Amino acid sequence: MTIVTCDLATTLDGYPAGPSQTLERPFGEIDTETLHAWHFGPLLERHQAEADAIVGADAYIMGRNMFSPKSSEAWPADWIGWWGNEPPYHAPVFVLTHYEHAPIELDGGTTFHFVTDGPDSALAQARAVAPADGRISVAGGASTVNAYLAAGEIDELRLHVVPYAAGLTGGARVFDGVGPIAWTAVTGRWTPEVNHVVYRR
Amino acid sequence: MTIVTCDLATTLDGYPAGPSQTLERPFGEIDTETLHAWHFGPLLERHQAEADAIVGADAYIMGRNMFSPKSSEAWPADWIGWWGNEPPYHAPVFVLTHYEHAPIELDGGTTFHFVTDGPDSALAQARAVAPADGRISVAGGASTVNAYLAAGEIDELRLHVVPYAAGLTGGARVFDGVGPIAWTAVTGRWTPEVNHVVYRR
Repeated sequence: MTIVTCDLATTLDGYPAGPSQTLERPFGEIDTETLHAWHFGPLLERHQAEADAIVGADAYIMGRNMFSPKSSEAWPADWIGWWGNEPPYHAPVFVLTHYEHAPIELDGGTTFHFVTDGPDSALAQARAVAPADGRISVAGGASTVNAYLAAGEIDELRLHVVPYAAGLTGGARVFDGVGPIAWTAVTGRWTPEVNHVVYRR
Repeated sequence: MTIVTCDLATTLDGYPAGPSQTLERPFGEIDTETLHAWHFGPLLERHQAEADAIVGADAYIMGRNMFSPKSSEAWPADWIGWWGNEPPYHAPVFVLTHYEHAPIELDGGTTFHFVTDGPDSALAQARAVAPADGRISVAGGASTVNAYLAAGEIDELRLHVVPYAAGLTGGARVFDGVGPIAWTAVTGRWTPEVNHVVYRR
């Protein structure tokens, strides 16, 4: 049976990103350094297992804002995502969007497919390309994760919680409006820079 | 120097209580059993250190809804709080309220004092009764904690996070509207039923 996982680096108050995303600030107005320092640079070694587990899925699903800056228009014609010519996914990535777009095939096995008929369709397409015992990763952002949480489709949620409270009044947080979910806490590993916690449905 | 601490048992999404508090449901519409099972009954032994650290302060501050059910009126004339004749505080407790009320002195050293002139006054009164190297605990609920977080008055925040997401759209969560705070993560201890995490400013 294919497992659906979700890895999300969040603030202490559940924000994986802040408001006002731009081309220069893919995570919006939030302390990106604190959110992500643990899986880059000198801290990576201590978190290699968790960082490795974020990638390595057989297919990915992401929201449109995770693929391109927010805008009332479709993204620029030459836009290939935030990750350059060789994104870290090495697998098909299904991007939820309102804009039809031909697939974008990049180096290393990543192909972005654009899905305009909603989360159920994206998940069905991901299941169709993943092996029967494979893994599909819902990559973010919060609204996309919440849609799949509300649908009961995320089997394993892995939060990477940093000691920073965004304290915003708006913006999308994980769990917002999802309704109650009683999780089974599978494992947790505390470090000063990030608290890794894994939950299963 | 007096230290101000705050212990809060919360859901995965930051709710220490749910909406619609009543006399019968002091924590409102939320899975109270999951929120608090770790410090009662058979699980307590495993969490004795954290449970002991919740109490043992020299003075406490709490919001009015933590003292009595929410109502447009003052509480019933014979109301002495949720805890019976011998509350677990054994120290002065300053209750933030809009209603003047004479102090209520109970067994075991707990006296409830009612403060009608706001959080700054309650903290000043707590400081006045606590020894110079003592500890003041902000006991809850979320709105009261958020007021002191926003004022920069909480030195140590100890969250006890249970694997249950309330997924509400409304209600008061810790950190809501507080603004950004970069914490130092001091320690964390994971168990399947609750994740204890301690942060300092």
